[in-house]
Amino acid sequence: MAGNFEPVEFIRRVRDGKRADASQMQSFAQAIMAGEVTDAQVAAWTMAVYFQGLAPEALFALTEAMAHSGEMLDLSPIEGFVVDKHSTGGVGDKTTLVVAPLVASFGVPVIKLSGRALGHSGGTVDKLESIPGFRSQLTRSEIIARGRELGLVLAGHSQTIAPLDAKIYQLRDSCATVESIPLIASSIISKKLAGGADGFVFDVKVGPGAFMKTMEEAQKLAHYLGELASRAGRGCTVIYSSMAEPLGSAIGNALEVREAQAALQGQGPEDLVELSVALAGAMLALAGLEVGQEELASRLASGKPRELFEQMVQKQGGRLEELPTAPYREPLLALEAGFVQGWDTQSLGSIARSLTGWRETDPAAGIEIIARRGAKVERGEPLAIVHTRSLEDLRRSQAALAPCATLGPEAPMEIPLLMANTQS
Amino acid sequence: MAGNFEPVEFIRRVRDGKRADASQMQSFAQAIMAGEVTDAQVAAWTMAVYFQGLAPEALFALTEAMAHSGEMLDLSPIEGFVVDKHSTGGVGDKTTLVVAPLVASFGVPVIKLSGRALGHSGGTVDKLESIPGFRSQLTRSEIIARGRELGLVLAGHSQTIAPLDAKIYQLRDSCATVESIPLIASSIISKKLAGGADGFVFDVKVGPGAFMKTMEEAQKLAHYLGELASRAGRGCTVIYSSMAEPLGSAIGNALEVREAQAALQGQGPEDLVELSVALAGAMLALAGLEVGQEELASRLASGKPRELFEQMVQKQGGRLEELPTAPYREPLLALEAGFVQGWDTQSLGSIARSLTGWRETDPAAGIEIIARRGAKVERGEPLAIVHTRSLEDLRRSQAALAPCATLGPEAPMEIPLLMANTQS
Repeated sequence: MAGNFEPVEFIRRVRDGKRADASQMQSFAQAIMAGEVTDAQVAAWTMAVYFQGLAPEALFALTEAMAHSGEMLDLSPIEGFVVDKHSTGGVGDKTTLVVAPLVASFGVPVIKLSGRALGHSGGTVDKLESIPGFRSQLTRSEIIARGRELGLVLAGHSQTIAPLDAKIYQLRDSCATVESIPLIASSIISKKLAGGADGFVFDVKVGPGAFMKTMEEAQKLAHYLGELASRAGRGCTVIYSSMAEPLGSAIGNALEVREAQAALQGQGPEDLVELSVALAGAMLALAGLEVGQEELASRLASGKPRELFEQMVQKQGGRLEELPTAPYREPLLALEAGFVQGWDTQSLGSIARSLTGWRETDPAAGIEIIARRGAKVERGEPLAIVHTRSLEDLRRSQAALAPCATLGPEAPMEIPLLMANTQS
Repeated sequence: MAGNFEPVEFIRRVRDGKRADASQMQSFAQAIMAGEVTDAQVAAWTMAVYFQGLAPEALFALTEAMAHSGEMLDLSPIEGFVVDKHSTGGVGDKTTLVVAPLVASFGVPVIKLSGRALGHSGGTVDKLESIPGFRSQLTRSEIIARGRELGLVLAGHSQTIAPLDAKIYQLRDSCATVESIPLIASSIISKKLAGGADGFVFDVKVGPGAFMKTMEEAQKLAHYLGELASRAGRGCTVIYSSMAEPLGSAIGNALEVREAQAALQGQGPEDLVELSVALAGAMLALAGLEVGQEELASRLASGKPRELFEQMVQKQGGRLEELPTAPYREPLLALEAGFVQGWDTQSLGSIARSLTGWRETDPAAGIEIIARRGAKVERGEPLAIVHTRSLEDLRRSQAALAPCATLGPEAPMEIPLLMANTQS
């Protein structure tokens, strides 16, 4: 054990809400990596942080220790200000597939390491891996080479990135401390720092289908993200977007890739395009490029971002032309006429997970929403189409899906997709 | 895993302060014993309990599960209402050695399982084991046989008593959750229930030398102790005693046995006798015997309790006549004249621990306070006598001891030993 550092005394300080300084936090992190503190001690500490928070300097020390616990990607061989984008996780959120090529089409390199699905929320890597042959695990030199050639890399996190974060996250997941907002921020930023980009745009999802259920929680998370990025000397912009409804119509890996391809050539859906344009504008602004929304929209319509996306997929081994489709598709019909008041977004995510296993079971399965929030349907018209690999899955998922849509006699109030930060 | 019980969801409920019911608590306890929850989960749960407490029915379910996790002593072959006594731990606290024979001398059986030293606070078993030959580990049939013969057994906890408590305690000790008052109460009562007595008297120590520093904490602990004992259908009385100063003059295993022997024949010290009489009265009252303080004091003076103590020691193999003495003894002299304002009790306990290792290093070593709180000393008069096995220990401990006594020009206010419960 380094010096006189006593893990139990450190835990007691955090428990008692006493300011833990950076060097104590570093000692604790080092002791975890050296196997000198037990999993039980780490777990108890995360619960103490859940209740008492962590002083900013200690939180930053933890973030840096997690970032430096594994490989730190050095992107300096790639010219320009490299931007990265991160979503806190939503249902039907395929924006990365749209935003990354859109930004890269302006010559600003996007090197993004993405994660897997988490709970009811899908993962970019799983979506990309629905493309036959696509390799998400790239070596460092492959990342640099692809970055230099195309200015666009979408790869999966390897186990060499921030292993201390992975260890702590796994304990939090088993010990009901995932919900600590400072620890969520620290986990996100540690991986971003290891990923090597110069600036980050965060899409903080808010609402019943997101991990942050309220604007207050979302703002708290944004505060920590901004604070940690700033201490690390990286550019950072936060955009809040509503996860009251799924983003776009498609939920399911291959279905989402198809929807992203449509958006990549300017063929909607509207909400996906709106969010993608906002995120791309923020990423370009971080890199010093002011590009208006109209220019971004017309860039999508030009088809150039789609070409870049296809080149990227091809260079990483993917065969887009073989994107799978599910053998069974059947509509879920409305039992009465009315306006769709809304969908239970979290349940949609959970049903999509049960159909697809996110990656293990069936990359082609999923749900396609036909009548989105606000749509008017007649009795017998389709609300959604279910895509499955078997008839059993079809029956089972239709039964689960039916109660997810609420109909009513009047059109519901509109919920804006982009949410203003109501604080300073 | 039994049924649909999900440890992580149980931890989340406790974390969120939602009422966990008895059956969930039982499932968690069973899962710990079955190895189906990780140490990390147990540790995180204890931290959640530290912050949120535990509903009474869940706390009782935990207590029962810990009690029943190992051997439950069946004391029914011993006639009469069996009483037990427990102190929350102090410095110089040898009352068990006095109280148990005193109560037994009235024909009320005392079968007590005692613990080891904890931190700066000594343990009854360690004190008894300073007597050469004394066997504190008795089998169940030995305990019954000694109980029937003498009505007096002082034995050590075996590892078969409440092993689940031992496991949870060990995790709490490493994770800074020892201080949870409901968990302290649950730990105490679980061992008492396994120990089989019909009624318990608790000596809750209060003050700077105790684990409960304030009357408020002590009352909280007493509340939980009473609640759990009552749910278990056992008699329970709580007495609060001050641990502002060490109890008696002797701190150290063999030194304390000698002081107890003096008290057992009515030769003080006053505070030890006062507390012993109060505890004995409460224990006898639980068994239905009202005995006044004067009668108890004269019973001590009769020498009968001391005879019983000696018989008990002899039957458990101890040779009191061989009680060791330390080769080095030297007084700590006052550097100025004045009234002793007080001793730093917790430090005295820690110095005694460093001299004796409580049991490993030297059972004969320790500290004998000569000028107790309120005493008037002249410059050069002894404040204390240090007993050690080596000259080095002598020098080292005298240096540590010197700042423990505070002198002042006037006599300090008296602190009563027995503290009234200021709540209902």
